[in-house]
Amino acid sequence: MSQPATIGIDIGGTNVRAGAVTREGQLLNWQDVPIEASQGPEAGLKRIIALIEQVSSAAGIRPEAIGIGSTGPIDRQRGAIQNPYTLPTWEDVDIASPLHKHFAVPVTLENDADAAALGESWMGAGRGLARQLMVTVGTGIGMGFILDGKIYRGLGGSHPEGGHIPVDPSGPECYCGARGCWESLASGTAIGVFARECATREPTTLLQKAGNDPEKIDAALVAEAAREGDRLALQIMQHTADYLGLGLVSLLHLFLPDCVIFTGGVMRSYALYQSRLHEIVKQHAVMAPIDQIPLRMAQLGQQAGIYGAARAVMLEAGQ
Amino acid sequence: MSQPATIGIDIGGTNVRAGAVTREGQLLNWQDVPIEASQGPEAGLKRIIALIEQVSSAAGIRPEAIGIGSTGPIDRQRGAIQNPYTLPTWEDVDIASPLHKHFAVPVTLENDADAAALGESWMGAGRGLARQLMVTVGTGIGMGFILDGKIYRGLGGSHPEGGHIPVDPSGPECYCGARGCWESLASGTAIGVFARECATREPTTLLQKAGNDPEKIDAALVAEAAREGDRLALQIMQHTADYLGLGLVSLLHLFLPDCVIFTGGVMRSYALYQSRLHEIVKQHAVMAPIDQIPLRMAQLGQQAGIYGAARAVMLEAGQ
Repeated sequence: MSQPATIGIDIGGTNVRAGAVTREGQLLNWQDVPIEASQGPEAGLKRIIALIEQVSSAAGIRPEAIGIGSTGPIDRQRGAIQNPYTLPTWEDVDIASPLHKHFAVPVTLENDADAAALGESWMGAGRGLARQLMVTVGTGIGMGFILDGKIYRGLGGSHPEGGHIPVDPSGPECYCGARGCWESLASGTAIGVFARECATREPTTLLQKAGNDPEKIDAALVAEAAREGDRLALQIMQHTADYLGLGLVSLLHLFLPDCVIFTGGVMRSYALYQSRLHEIVKQHAVMAPIDQIPLRMAQLGQQAGIYGAARAVMLEAGQ
Repeated sequence: MSQPATIGIDIGGTNVRAGAVTREGQLLNWQDVPIEASQGPEAGLKRIIALIEQVSSAAGIRPEAIGIGSTGPIDRQRGAIQNPYTLPTWEDVDIASPLHKHFAVPVTLENDADAAALGESWMGAGRGLARQLMVTVGTGIGMGFILDGKIYRGLGGSHPEGGHIPVDPSGPECYCGARGCWESLASGTAIGVFARECATREPTTLLQKAGNDPEKIDAALVAEAAREGDRLALQIMQHTADYLGLGLVSLLHLFLPDCVIFTGGVMRSYALYQSRLHEIVKQHAVMAPIDQIPLRMAQLGQQAGIYGAARAVMLEAGQ
């Protein structure tokens, strides 16, 4: 009979990834498939079951527990995904029970930002640190705080929402209804919005790069133009770095973590931010030693969520 | 021979308070004396020793441990106070060693905001809650976060500095050198500064109340005028409540505590803030259930620091 191992699953808006992880943190095999959420949760669940079976077979293991990290909102207690925004039609989808029924093993569900943070803390950039803050800057801004190797949870098991701290009361309106949320000022989406505003005001290289269609300007294009030395793109990146820095300064003052781990699409352009970010942190480091907190890049890439989801169910089972 | 009990000490800029506390949390006796810091730390230390002896004698106990909470900055590891700002001449004063030598018992030193928060969590408004956030709004803004009955500490044992999170990039310059810190917008000092600015622009009841001397306008006077219905004073309180709310929203999103406990001079006027504060929290409660977090007033008054300092040394001794 094959050895037991834990399955970690990472459900995103586009793909679902699954991997087989040993208790010692070795990733034996991992694979991904498109989630094709709009085909409905039942079809999605079948894909996930097939994926788990493929991974288990390829790794030569028998699943002894299944941990899931999913794009939220989720209901941890009930093991249900409530995310019709990123996963069209997935409203209040109980994912834990059918997997538990099918595989007859413990199943847990976590927010994907928490799972990725736990993965990095366990086997990645935050290994061995008591307090690890992970910040994801992509379409939105997410965070996960790992304290003594465990996910920090708020009242009723709720998940901290760093992306919605107010950073500038005169900032743009956020989709959440408030004004000047961190996410509305420093996410990839915010870069795109701000760049399109700027580009329509003056004819620029940025607009040319977008084939003169302002709608085609997004954060990736701005980063590319900035790397090529485009003046406006560099200004936009500086503007974003300032806001990214201000929100970060708040998180640093409150958690005073042993390290911050950055991940997400926007952070692929970290080289464009780094010096300005350090400058802002230094300017604010008078009352607390926040400039001593290392800012690092995530190490586990797309596998962070797999490691973390697996670790979460291991912790739940007291392993 | 008399029963043992723990001594809790609260060192402030004006007074030092000491109390004898049982392991069960009964405050047997407490007293205070002026600290008269400018007479130097040696004289101060003699006063503190005399105060401990008076309290022990009045309570009929023998000190078995001494916990100190002091206005910071402090160096916890070394048991030293580094606060020439609030305690003139007290620069790098080792307070723990001489008390340990004199009484031959364990002595610990904590930041006063942490001690007060721990006191409220142990025997006050936060009893029985896993995550308690205490916010002190007075001359400055301080905070203490209690997690599972213990003080949350950052890297190297550092103390979170909620008062210096950036709340408005176009706000006033803070004494820390940054711009728009929470403390520079919503503390008692900030109310005074803003009110003096307003009062010099237009002749008001507020100015009359201050005997036409704008320098005499402070937060207490503004609160008094607001309670009497003065229009400008009410506007100033509303302006402050808005900023108090924005900083609070950040803390709520990140810690998602089971309750917030308010204390400090400005919070004596909580009735003037309450409805606006709730309104702001509600406006921002779309992504996280922050409007479900109860906002409470502290219950232990001036004794919170005594309870908390005593509890801190008990915890250190594994009691």
